[in-house]
Amino acid sequence: MGMDLMRSLSFPPGSHWAGRDDTGSSIAVPCFLHRWLAVSDYYQLDELLTPEENDLRIKIRLFMENDVAPIIPQYWETAVLPFHLIPKLGSLGFLGGIIKGHECPGLSATAYAMCISEVARVDASIASFCLVQSCLAMLCIAAQLGSESQKDKYLPSLSKLHKVCAYALTEPDYGSDASSLNTVARKVPGGWVLNGRKRWPGNSSFADVLVVLARNTSTNQVNGFIVNGGSPGLQISKIENKVSMRMVQNCDIELKNVFVPEDDRLPGANSFQDLVNSLAFSRVMAAWVSIGIAVGVYDACRRYLGERKQWRVPLAAFQLNQEKLVRMLGNIQAMWLFGWRLCKLHGSGKMTIGQASLGKAWITKQARETVALGRELFGGNGIVTDFHVGKAFCDMETVYTYEGSYEINALIVAREITGISSIRPTSRL
Amino acid sequence: MGMDLMRSLSFPPGSHWAGRDDTGSSIAVPCFLHRWLAVSDYYQLDELLTPEENDLRIKIRLFMENDVAPIIPQYWETAVLPFHLIPKLGSLGFLGGIIKGHECPGLSATAYAMCISEVARVDASIASFCLVQSCLAMLCIAAQLGSESQKDKYLPSLSKLHKVCAYALTEPDYGSDASSLNTVARKVPGGWVLNGRKRWPGNSSFADVLVVLARNTSTNQVNGFIVNGGSPGLQISKIENKVSMRMVQNCDIELKNVFVPEDDRLPGANSFQDLVNSLAFSRVMAAWVSIGIAVGVYDACRRYLGERKQWRVPLAAFQLNQEKLVRMLGNIQAMWLFGWRLCKLHGSGKMTIGQASLGKAWITKQARETVALGRELFGGNGIVTDFHVGKAFCDMETVYTYEGSYEINALIVAREITGISSIRPTSRL
Amino acid sequence: MGMDLMRSLSFPPGSHWAGRDDTGSSIAVPCFLHRWLAVSDYYQLDELLTPEENDLRIKIRLFMENDVAPIIPQYWETAVLPFHLIPKLGSLGFLGGIIKGHECPGLSATAYAMCISEVARVDASIASFCLVQSCLAMLCIAAQLGSESQKDKYLPSLSKLHKVCAYALTEPDYGSDASSLNTVARKVPGGWVLNGRKRWPGNSSFADVLVVLARNTSTNQVNGFIVNGGSPGLQISKIENKVSMRMVQNCDIELKNVFVPEDDRLPGANSFQDLVNSLAFSRVMAAWVSIGIAVGVYDACRRYLGERKQWRVPLAAFQLNQEKLVRMLGNIQAMWLFGWRLCKLHGSGKMTIGQASLGKAWITKQARETVALGRELFGGNGIVTDFHVGKAFCDMETVYTYEGSYEINALIVAREITGISSIRPTSRL
Amino acid sequence: MGMDLMRSLSFPPGSHWAGRDDTGSSIAVPCFLHRWLAVSDYYQLDELLTPEENDLRIKIRLFMENDVAPIIPQYWETAVLPFHLIPKLGSLGFLGGIIKGHECPGLSATAYAMCISEVARVDASIASFCLVQSCLAMLCIAAQLGSESQKDKYLPSLSKLHKVCAYALTEPDYGSDASSLNTVARKVPGGWVLNGRKRWPGNSSFADVLVVLARNTSTNQVNGFIVNGGSPGLQISKIENKVSMRMVQNCDIELKNVFVPEDDRLPGANSFQDLVNSLAFSRVMAAWVSIGIAVGVYDACRRYLGERKQWRVPLAAFQLNQEKLVRMLGNIQAMWLFGWRLCKLHGSGKMTIGQASLGKAWITKQARETVALGRELFGGNGIVTDFHVGKAFCDMETVYTYEGSYEINALIVAREITGISSIRPTSRL
Repeated sequence: MGMDLMRSLSFPPGSHWAGRDDTGSSIAVPCFLHRWLAVSDYYQLDELLTPEENDLRIKIRLFMENDVAPIIPQYWETAVLPFHLIPKLGSLGFLGGIIKGHECPGLSATAYAMCISEVARVDASIASFCLVQSCLAMLCIAAQLGSESQKDKYLPSLSKLHKVCAYALTEPDYGSDASSLNTVARKVPGGWVLNGRKRWPGNSSFADVLVVLARNTSTNQVNGFIVNGGSPGLQISKIENKVSMRMVQNCDIELKNVFVPEDDRLPGANSFQDLVNSLAFSRVMAAWVSIGIAVGVYDACRRYLGERKQWRVPLAAFQLNQEKLVRMLGNIQAMWLFGWRLCKLHGSGKMTIGQASLGKAWITKQARETVALGRELFGGNGIVTDFHVGKAFCDMETVYTYEGSYEINALIVAREITGISSIRPTSRL
Repeated sequence: MGMDLMRSLSFPPGSHWAGRDDTGSSIAVPCFLHRWLAVSDYYQLDELLTPEENDLRIKIRLFMENDVAPIIPQYWETAVLPFHLIPKLGSLGFLGGIIKGHECPGLSATAYAMCISEVARVDASIASFCLVQSCLAMLCIAAQLGSESQKDKYLPSLSKLHKVCAYALTEPDYGSDASSLNTVARKVPGGWVLNGRKRWPGNSSFADVLVVLARNTSTNQVNGFIVNGGSPGLQISKIENKVSMRMVQNCDIELKNVFVPEDDRLPGANSFQDLVNSLAFSRVMAAWVSIGIAVGVYDACRRYLGERKQWRVPLAAFQLNQEKLVRMLGNIQAMWLFGWRLCKLHGSGKMTIGQASLGKAWITKQARETVALGRELFGGNGIVTDFHVGKAFCDMETVYTYEGSYEINALIVAREITGISSIRPTSRL
Repeated sequence: MGMDLMRSLSFPPGSHWAGRDDTGSSIAVPCFLHRWLAVSDYYQLDELLTPEENDLRIKIRLFMENDVAPIIPQYWETAVLPFHLIPKLGSLGFLGGIIKGHECPGLSATAYAMCISEVARVDASIASFCLVQSCLAMLCIAAQLGSESQKDKYLPSLSKLHKVCAYALTEPDYGSDASSLNTVARKVPGGWVLNGRKRWPGNSSFADVLVVLARNTSTNQVNGFIVNGGSPGLQISKIENKVSMRMVQNCDIELKNVFVPEDDRLPGANSFQDLVNSLAFSRVMAAWVSIGIAVGVYDACRRYLGERKQWRVPLAAFQLNQEKLVRMLGNIQAMWLFGWRLCKLHGSGKMTIGQASLGKAWITKQARETVALGRELFGGNGIVTDFHVGKAFCDMETVYTYEGSYEINALIVAREITGISSIRPTSRL
Repeated sequence: MGMDLMRSLSFPPGSHWAGRDDTGSSIAVPCFLHRWLAVSDYYQLDELLTPEENDLRIKIRLFMENDVAPIIPQYWETAVLPFHLIPKLGSLGFLGGIIKGHECPGLSATAYAMCISEVARVDASIASFCLVQSCLAMLCIAAQLGSESQKDKYLPSLSKLHKVCAYALTEPDYGSDASSLNTVARKVPGGWVLNGRKRWPGNSSFADVLVVLARNTSTNQVNGFIVNGGSPGLQISKIENKVSMRMVQNCDIELKNVFVPEDDRLPGANSFQDLVNSLAFSRVMAAWVSIGIAVGVYDACRRYLGERKQWRVPLAAFQLNQEKLVRMLGNIQAMWLFGWRLCKLHGSGKMTIGQASLGKAWITKQARETVALGRELFGGNGIVTDFHVGKAFCDMETVYTYEGSYEINALIVAREITGISSIRPTSRL
């Protein structure tokens, strides 16, 4: 579908609804998202995309608007992932992202960024589900660490979402300091035995396979292992009581003598630095999750300010509201261009770790400000997920922290540009 | 109990726990609140309190730490108010606050502020429950609008929480523009018939009585009415899918020919301005809710940064974390002094509407910044309510908006200091 | 000169100096600017430029570094424009900017943006001198309002800086509300007589010609007039006591029966809207002035943090300093891409007034934050112009305000995106 | 003079003028300061003062408004201290501040804070002149380090400003890291010989005496010495090209074999920690300088917004301006209460180093925001010192940095509250 067509589509305001009404009947609370692509695209940024990238973007948007937006608040409320959406999500053909071959789509970084941000625009939990599948687990296998036979075995079904995977790096005591991880892999005849604890891996409660990072007790290096979701000794319990991305099934994992056959060790992961390199792209995509969130909030605000009145004039007529809306719009143009440039650097093969970290840190910081402004604009309705913005506001906190917190990413950039690392502090106790 | 005793209490870190552990057994996740009063009270602000005010503060703190903190995350999760706490809450003797006589405690504004902030330090939903009961509904009856017989009839049982009340002003279409309300009260023999809709009233799904504001069709003035919770024609449905103060039972209310006997019209409420005056004190107390939230977050951060380590040093040793902690501490000293001065102005009978609005606007703005900093300091654990801060972060959004949004309160101050109202914009459509 | 060459140039730190030393001898205080182009260009943004654009950028940079940086602090101090630089500035061939024909360079908007930002990187007063000449006065004559004979008469000498011009729109009582201007032009035989007052026009104390906007008393429309700098009745007094862009010769102007021959009325300026359209490009370039300022501050900070030590380690090793430096760098990548996209929109002929205003508002806001961070990083030395940053910090304030303040530009954007103007407030006195 | 009288004084707007007008005649540009005490004192903070403190405040205000405000822009412009004001300043009786005996006024910390803030409200350079005299040099002699005979010899004439003193601690290479100072004092018969360099000491170009900190080569401890302003070997050159506090005569000092008689060594200064303790009070007063600056800016804005019109309505009628004015007012109430509490803690003898540092860091941060908002509100006129705000904006930068930068003070607080020092970073080069 061409952009001109999309731009000209004249969905009447209020035509699109979601949620339950006060009396319990089915359709009453509006889903406050504009369907026009052009609303937040004030600088005609779509001109920087290829027709294929634009088409893919529109395809994802229509799926998210039609199939996801109307039902998503109740899933967030109950912290349940809408499993029934997974097959259709898989059929859209973008999982696997930039991976080439092995039945993966081989998209440009920019095309994949469009997909992730369009998903996140409506729901960041589902975007994170995709990110874990595609940019952490699959890319870990594909890009550097897996053998050809491992790629052939796992990637095709993962790219169609016939199987779901997770990625287990962080531990209860090692977050920012991930490289110090304590989970160990001990060589035994025919394979490896893993012991340790992991915290946070998304998708892990129902994943078919988990990529687990563990310290090889022989070499003391961090290696990667593909662990079957039903392995004996694998205990997985969902982290409850979250206020953000409630649909993402983060878990506490305990590995007690979990056996992994030799064939399922990732041969390419011989050092933590190998891992860091493969994580750089996921930082770029995490930044694009926050761009999508910000765009969704802006679109909702743009519509709400036009429809909601006080003193008989639209909220859009108040100076204080106008300035906020404009600040949001400016932030979005900047974040988008920032993320776009980062994709181009990645595509050229020249992107450094620091460049990825700057993108993650700067873009999520702006997104967080943008989303907080949107929350303000919605007033009381901004705390109810039916109006979209409250959910996005909460979800944003996860994005600000995962794939390296703002601070860690900033210090990684600083290390690259100054040549001095200050990440590890001195303690003078 | 004296302050010196309290300060010297040496609760070992980690001695106080709440929530469920990963394996489902009962008591494992720490409640990240310091029990020492002195932690956030860096400028010895308790010296500005009377011994009675300090004692009351400690009594409330102990109740909140012991009875509420350990169980509250699961109530927030399920959006259920812990009803079983209401009798004990009532027995603490602070509901009714500054109201004198009618079996109310007649506290100083400062004493009451201590109570509200201590409640909010652990949980802002319960603080808001108290605020609705005490500062909106009861004060509306007591301070200006109710007759002596109404006061005698209602206040004693409300001050002990034998009965719960709600306060219904805001309507679906009239939030900031509350004075334009559409609910009407028509005179009929023996009383009044009310028709209209309300949105947001807290406590209303289970309140014994509701104070409802409605437009008297004879005079076109806004009057107050005490409506029985079980009145025929009163339809109340809870607002679901909230991301903030999930325990507060906000509702959508419809009044269809609800009869109110003549005795239950509040005779003192003859204009919207009368109401506004009675709302000023609730703005002061809303500001104190946010102070309590900020103190709770600071206390949790102070403890967490000392206990959580990365790279084998406490998070408290990182410059970036230290600066945030200090900024939070500075904000708290300032908010506290600001709120304290406001209480003194109120106590002297000289507090203007603008002064109350400045307190609400400025203090909640600082509190919001403070709480966001705390959320950052907790990293990933900051999105799980077991660690306290995630819950406080979400709850803060309600406080920023209720009792007049930041913007409305700012414009009310500006009107008072410049003599020019800009609240209602011009629209040039 | 190619970019690769430029990037490889290894100017030793400290090789470039300016100012006076403590003992009065001539050359001791370092000019804290990096000469490498790549320092702030972290995302290889030069790849988005043509070779010609890059070459022009380097040519301007070398002039500014070699001829201007070493001498400029003393001119700022004494609020004197370094007139001796004007001929060489004129010979660089970029004045006239995007104007085609009439011996003007006909640059792309992007190329001209590179020039302006390179000038502003070292000194914003000189950049503003160029902006007045090129984007206000010359463009007013060239783009829309002047006749062909006027263009032939004025543009060639102006583009070479053989003559200097000024642009007089703002009046003492009409700043943001420029359209209400009070200066009048009355038709007389053979020409027009102008009366009124202007405030702020840069360059006007020594300009050869001034473009003056005045209200035609016959039509009540705003027209443009070319006024000779020495005209009888023209009184010009420099505005003293400035804290920002002290070298720009802003003036208060009084026109008392100043005669302008018929040939010097700009025939194309028939309404204020015509003017607004011609001002849009100057807003884009004002944004680029602020980008240049921010880049200069970043370059200076990058160098200073590496050279200045406390506790025997470079300032660059402190976490708090690193985070600021990274935030600045992120802002600069974003501002640059934002401004670049705006140039492309302008080049395609599609740029709207709102798009220009968003660029001006958003970019200067980020630049102001960036420059304030840089001021902090320099500590005490940040208040002395020899170290560059103090001067840039002060100059930034002018850019934040001129060509439409942040607020006015934000409200112009809001009007375009919401369809509702809130620029003029209601007063309810 | 009582507060009621002062409050009732009805100075007509525009009655008070300063500077030169456009046509060169003497008195035309208004000094944009309100004379009413009550303008920024929205929470009746004067009630927290004693009558004597209020009277002293009013006395200083009248001097600053009448004698200083009208003439000060031209002194700032030329970076000259108005020496003719020194005798009258001395006669006001507040120099020496909290020092008791030795013909010093023995004021409460609060009273002295009122004086310093009232001076800074009109001009921060003069406030800093007082601070150097009173809180650095005199207090260094009086409070801890000087002998009784030194106190008798120096304090009486210094408290009346018959003599001027300076305080020389910072060195070119040691700013934040002041304790590492390199200036040395070598014991010789009858006294000491000093060698080294100092940077920044205010007042030093014309001071009668300088308190110089130097490392005793025998003990390696930092000692204090009273150096005569005309001592042989003392070379003092003024730091030129400042953008902030241009009237303060900061200097670069070189000591080449400067002899100090034994009697002029301060016997009490035996360690750097002794000095740090004496500096804590100057941090409190530096905070009050910034409070004074912020109040002056607010007062000017409050007046300007009422008088300046665009679109025929006062600037005070615009929502965006109103919100800024209110934010400024809120900040000021908070800063004032913060500083007041700090004075009370100091007065009780319990103030810690950390408490002083928190006051300096937090208050100056808020003041900096407040002053930047004021600069925005003045638009173009905000860059001309005749309108007061531009000067205050520039001066604020010095206060943000001196007496310990924001960062250093924040880290000092953090050290006190966490027990962990992070001031000195690790470098991993």
